[in-house]
Amino acid sequence: MTDDTTIETSPAEDAREEELHGVGRERRDAILDAVEAGDTARLNSLLERLHAADIADLLEQLGAGERADLLALWSGEIDGDILSELDESIREEVIAALPPEVLGEAVRELDSDDVVDILEDLEEPQQEIILDALDDADRVAVEQAMSYPEYSAGRLMQRETVVAPEHWTVGEAIDFLRAEDWLPDQFYHVILVDPRMKPVGNVTLGRLLSSKRSVKLRDITEAMFRTIRATEEEAEVAYLFNQYHLISAPVVDENDRLVGVITIDDAMNVLDEEHEEDILRLAGVGEGSLSDSWIETAKQRFPWLFVNLLTAILASAVISLFEGTISKLVALAVLMPIVASQGGNAGTQGLTVAVRALATRSLTYSNVGRVIGREVLQGVANGIFFGVIMGVISYAWFDQPVLGLVIGLAMVINLFAAALAGILIPLGLEKLGFDPALSSGAFVTTVTDVVGFFSFLWLASVILL
Amino acid sequence: MTDDTTIETSPAEDAREEELHGVGRERRDAILDAVEAGDTARLNSLLERLHAADIADLLEQLGAGERADLLALWSGEIDGDILSELDESIREEVIAALPPEVLGEAVRELDSDDVVDILEDLEEPQQEIILDALDDADRVAVEQAMSYPEYSAGRLMQRETVVAPEHWTVGEAIDFLRAEDWLPDQFYHVILVDPRMKPVGNVTLGRLLSSKRSVKLRDITEAMFRTIRATEEEAEVAYLFNQYHLISAPVVDENDRLVGVITIDDAMNVLDEEHEEDILRLAGVGEGSLSDSWIETAKQRFPWLFVNLLTAILASAVISLFEGTISKLVALAVLMPIVASQGGNAGTQGLTVAVRALATRSLTYSNVGRVIGREVLQGVANGIFFGVIMGVISYAWFDQPVLGLVIGLAMVINLFAAALAGILIPLGLEKLGFDPALSSGAFVTTVTDVVGFFSFLWLASVILL
Repeated sequence: MTDDTTIETSPAEDAREEELHGVGRERRDAILDAVEAGDTARLNSLLERLHAADIADLLEQLGAGERADLLALWSGEIDGDILSELDESIREEVIAALPPEVLGEAVRELDSDDVVDILEDLEEPQQEIILDALDDADRVAVEQAMSYPEYSAGRLMQRETVVAPEHWTVGEAIDFLRAEDWLPDQFYHVILVDPRMKPVGNVTLGRLLSSKRSVKLRDITEAMFRTIRATEEEAEVAYLFNQYHLISAPVVDENDRLVGVITIDDAMNVLDEEHEEDILRLAGVGEGSLSDSWIETAKQRFPWLFVNLLTAILASAVISLFEGTISKLVALAVLMPIVASQGGNAGTQGLTVAVRALATRSLTYSNVGRVIGREVLQGVANGIFFGVIMGVISYAWFDQPVLGLVIGLAMVINLFAAALAGILIPLGLEKLGFDPALSSGAFVTTVTDVVGFFSFLWLASVILL
Repeated sequence: MTDDTTIETSPAEDAREEELHGVGRERRDAILDAVEAGDTARLNSLLERLHAADIADLLEQLGAGERADLLALWSGEIDGDILSELDESIREEVIAALPPEVLGEAVRELDSDDVVDILEDLEEPQQEIILDALDDADRVAVEQAMSYPEYSAGRLMQRETVVAPEHWTVGEAIDFLRAEDWLPDQFYHVILVDPRMKPVGNVTLGRLLSSKRSVKLRDITEAMFRTIRATEEEAEVAYLFNQYHLISAPVVDENDRLVGVITIDDAMNVLDEEHEEDILRLAGVGEGSLSDSWIETAKQRFPWLFVNLLTAILASAVISLFEGTISKLVALAVLMPIVASQGGNAGTQGLTVAVRALATRSLTYSNVGRVIGREVLQGVANGIFFGVIMGVISYAWFDQPVLGLVIGLAMVINLFAAALAGILIPLGLEKLGFDPALSSGAFVTTVTDVVGFFSFLWLASVILL
């Protein structure tokens, strides 16, 4: 936290503008001018009042060349907060550009959870440089955290905790806090522990401050208290914070002993990442960041396009079964994509709702039967509706009433299939332990393409010809 | 906050299981049994230790009939926290089922921001019932909050603030907090204000607790300090909290005077909702909840399917231009969906990345040119790749080398178009003030369908026939 713009800058309105939108265009241009001119003093004065998060955004949004030039002039000023804020795709590059002593200084300022966050994305040699820069105690703390599985609460937690024995009074706690020469940057509770270091309650700082010195801590613990296992998955942690409005929660080992604490900002971060991941996975975009090169981007997009190609070829194989039918009535070729496309869209709607409901845990054994029923009914309803519309349009277009009937029926069948696939495929994948966000789309569109083309062309071959 | 399960329940492992997963299946079945038997005492004992959020989830996941039966037995126990947690689609139904005195009691317990949150989704007559139940002071506070625009910081904030004059010492602040008989449920900062009630700094409670009584508050303010305008959009508020790791931030009116405070849990909630909205909008699913009926669901899904129908008909019209060509070579009808489908998927990948980058503000004037270039290059690269694959497959399948050439070229053209549309359409919509998540999909697939069918069939008519 290096920012104190608001209080001191003026005029107030300009400051507010800059505040709300990170680095403004003018300031960015001025920064790039200073970099080009090699004017370190000017660069320092432009950057020094910016928040670490905004500096990190700026670095991410610059081109690789601009970024290298800026770092060449300014790398001495990079601190731990900026490193923490950087996207991992850029962070490695920035760390490689830092003089070792600057890097050491930067990581020594950080809480252990932030060091772990930086460390886990780096290659071994860079990890070593950072670990070597830490004090022995910090190094041990970080290495212990790294011994927990990736994406676990143990990686997410900070090891620095503020605890008090459960028999203390408010006065004793306050005297202890005043005497302590080291406290975490942010903490929201004093954790009460029993003699075995098992957490037994949380006292909010507000409650501590507003209570008389003689009050026992155990009499003012928060009603809501949950501990989290260090091996718990971070997605679960984010869910707990969100569901129960936690601000901070003690983390315990397998013997229920306190090993750290997770605060809401970390949980918010995880929630944000999980969402992002779900959105990108649903669209078939792998991991990736905006600063990746076009080659990396092409590689990331390739697997899903390849899966889709197989799906599309399968659909084409279905069409090829009916080449004879199509050659007799080319109108079928004109209309058939409509049936498949409506099915694909309806299926995507259903699967997105299902994937989100699974992720937020609103789809459970309590309502799964009802939700399946609902999906099917709405599928049939929209199927009939669009079947009638398309029937009439096709009749008018090609002047063939039976063609209208065929496309209408195919539409009902395909939207019914889309509804079933849209709910059952994500449920099935979840049950089998796969991530439904990742692969539902391919299966669902396979179903709707195959069913769409087959039902339309088969009905045509039977009824029309 | 009515929950204190963790400390007292046992055996510990069972409690943990229940804790982590809300209401377990067994407890749910026991609850439904008690409802069926009309056993209020048993129902109370099953529900009383559950967290409000879990009770709300349970109510949401029950069928309408089960829910009505449960409420008939248990409505007297519904409190403000449960109402706050309920999804709005169910909340109205639950409020309608509550005896007026229970409703009054429930809302009186809540902070003003929670009352506003409940109120804004209700119809006028229900709003009146709730407003009438409040004390005069609370009613005025709630009505003032309601006078701010929907989805603004003014609606999100709680009006209850903890402030201190900027010249106070730590000791004065602590004495004040001890003497105060009313404090918000949760607060994380003491806000320093000048004599005009303009906020000038935040002191964290941790800092307050660990400093000597004689220290001046203004000497221990947090480095990071940002105020938020009451008229600011809530999405902007969520961004600020996430970007700058805020825990709470003072809200000011147009004269920079303090009118309330927003805490991180509210911001996390907004972030969550914004994400959810983006995901559902990208899939063409409107507002809606899992407890909606099939009729409501069918209506919500209808508009997007209708838009898609128009798109698909447009694509069909393009195909119909080439009926003559297709009738000469039916293989074209077999292969053409592949070109359109690959384009549609590539376009969706690009647009999803663009929509997310705009939402998280990582796509700015600094990098927009580079990102457009990257998208186009990766589109051409994947276009060439899949063009070659499909060219070879088509050649092998239909034994016509020129057909392979045609589909290969069409694939390159369509993936290039998909890449351009995937980035330029969201950017354009954003520029015009539309939500790119909502409507990009329809435009992008229109482009990829039209370009896909046209390029393939036109090339075939020119080169092949």
